[in-house]
Amino acid sequence: MKRHTTPTLLVDKNRCLKNIQSMLDKAEQNQIELRPHFKTHQSHEVGRWFRNLGVKKIAVSSLRMAAYFAADGWKDITVAFPTNILEIDLINALASKIKLNLLIQSKETFLFLEEHLTAPICGFIKIDLGTKRTGIEGDNFELLDDLISGIEGSRQLLFSGFLGHAGHSYRARGLEEIKMVHDEAMAKMGLVYHYYKNTHPNISISIGDTPTCSKISTFDFVTELRPGNFVFYDLMQAQIGSCSLDQIAVAVACPIVALHPERNEIIIYGGGIHFSKEVYTHSDYGTCYGWIVADDRNGWSSPIPDVYLSRLSQEHGVISCSDAFINNFSIGQVIKILPVHSCMTANLLQQMFTTEGKRLDMMPILYNL
Amino acid sequence: MKRHTTPTLLVDKNRCLKNIQSMLDKAEQNQIELRPHFKTHQSHEVGRWFRNLGVKKIAVSSLRMAAYFAADGWKDITVAFPTNILEIDLINALASKIKLNLLIQSKETFLFLEEHLTAPICGFIKIDLGTKRTGIEGDNFELLDDLISGIEGSRQLLFSGFLGHAGHSYRARGLEEIKMVHDEAMAKMGLVYHYYKNTHPNISISIGDTPTCSKISTFDFVTELRPGNFVFYDLMQAQIGSCSLDQIAVAVACPIVALHPERNEIIIYGGGIHFSKEVYTHSDYGTCYGWIVADDRNGWSSPIPDVYLSRLSQEHGVISCSDAFINNFSIGQVIKILPVHSCMTANLLQQMFTTEGKRLDMMPILYNL
Repeated sequence: MKRHTTPTLLVDKNRCLKNIQSMLDKAEQNQIELRPHFKTHQSHEVGRWFRNLGVKKIAVSSLRMAAYFAADGWKDITVAFPTNILEIDLINALASKIKLNLLIQSKETFLFLEEHLTAPICGFIKIDLGTKRTGIEGDNFELLDDLISGIEGSRQLLFSGFLGHAGHSYRARGLEEIKMVHDEAMAKMGLVYHYYKNTHPNISISIGDTPTCSKISTFDFVTELRPGNFVFYDLMQAQIGSCSLDQIAVAVACPIVALHPERNEIIIYGGGIHFSKEVYTHSDYGTCYGWIVADDRNGWSSPIPDVYLSRLSQEHGVISCSDAFINNFSIGQVIKILPVHSCMTANLLQQMFTTEGKRLDMMPILYNL
Repeated sequence: MKRHTTPTLLVDKNRCLKNIQSMLDKAEQNQIELRPHFKTHQSHEVGRWFRNLGVKKIAVSSLRMAAYFAADGWKDITVAFPTNILEIDLINALASKIKLNLLIQSKETFLFLEEHLTAPICGFIKIDLGTKRTGIEGDNFELLDDLISGIEGSRQLLFSGFLGHAGHSYRARGLEEIKMVHDEAMAKMGLVYHYYKNTHPNISISIGDTPTCSKISTFDFVTELRPGNFVFYDLMQAQIGSCSLDQIAVAVACPIVALHPERNEIIIYGGGIHFSKEVYTHSDYGTCYGWIVADDRNGWSSPIPDVYLSRLSQEHGVISCSDAFINNFSIGQVIKILPVHSCMTANLLQQMFTTEGKRLDMMPILYNL
């Protein structure tokens, strides 16, 4: 196996393939299309794992990311982020090459696009499913009617449906709370579905967040699921209840640089610029940035109880552990850690290695800038 | 001025030069050497601003960063991080070209270096100044004597002195608390200074964290100051009391993508992958990821009261503001935000632009990986 001498993101390809297949099975059982969100991995190669399992449509979180995946042959891409009108040149360049789906959530954005588009775009109206981040309220029919008739009369825009993201599912803990978020989201999306189902029977209704897509079995009128994180999962998702710990498909390998047995702490090369400062509060440990796993034949074990990443500075991490644990380690060994938020960690590390040692390129941070 | 269409880090060069000169003046008044930490900016060009003001020695936080700055002509570099013995090949390559100063804080690390070094290294023993992250206790003379005599008998290692970092000054609020941290740090470093001053009169005593270096006037037996963040400062430093808000020399320019006047929120393109999730709790606002400033002729104004970045997801940011404020803005405008932790934000954005529009390259995340 490749020797990693600095903090390195490891990917268990088999776990990823199982996570992808499981979500594909759920979509198929519900006769819903899966449009996975690729912001989690930002990798051409991981994208191809999805393609090889039959996925044809994807979501991304920026126009630059759409350009990155279009360059690897993806032809139907939704930018699941409020349209940034300042990037109109990139929008037009992409729209001339692929089926580009953009979000519209205000009259201003619509009017700008209508004036400046030089190629066709599929427009999705963003509905607020209760997250209160962005989107139009599902009962604001005056604005919705106005926008839809504007889009339908447009030269370059095609009205394609409604899109929402129940991002507040990240605050849920356990199946009951995930269900409550989902029920609220479906009620809000239901407002537009029922209002427009007769006049617009063939539009798409797209939702997608990893907790609800992972744990809910039926999706009623929804036509498309758009989760992203599920390919890797992470401690936050395990905490929410979206996955088991054994479904987590990424770990960060970090060299040990110091040992402090007098306070049961292991100091690693691996800090906020590797893990991100994404944190969760564990009921027993308090502030937690990661859980430690042991090497095993195929990758890594389940997390080791009472051993966790308790502090992070820019490049240092501090692992709190027990007497028994610290005695197994020496300076220069590499320790594996499950991250709190895999999307943020992958974005920071900028490359991944499979547990077999194959390097996976990712979108460079300065791609297309 | 250059038009920025995606989240962009802006640097006010004049403020940086003033911040650098002010720290140089303090070092000169105390007849102490300034060895600025370059992890904050990670930029050849910003490094040259220091060089043009007379700086010849620097600190960095990784061996890769040492290689990056060595490539721009820096000849005396301290890696202010526990030596990662897994990178011995890079250590030897650097040591054959420049004066490389490494930290030693355990017998294991010393023995490894002694066996594997093929070029000379200056060894600093890391002393814990009260932060309890890494380093040897200043009264552990048995270990210190043993290490020093080992280093002095070594083929390739030269004993150069003691180094400490009072990182817990980041938890201080106000001058009195900064002074308390500094007094504790000086007491701990004083233990080794007094014990070794007769046997080792010419060694270096290096300390350096931005709060104490910014606010303390005299440094007694210290021979070297090693702060880094002060070139940019940020909201965390203003919060600690290290700087005034008008000394903060970086801001993030972010496009507005949505407006929600019904809840006085502005949605920007600018999230956790741009700002980092570094957060502080403001006494009035609660969770805060940034403060908003207005454009002015030379760059930006002082922060606007009661307008702040209150939530961050991966690519979105939510600004909470007043009625009066939100009415000044429209979708497609660019808004400027002072970050909580400039080191983390710069590392994520990977490039900077001066307020005059000049692009400043930074060390690529995958540099030398």
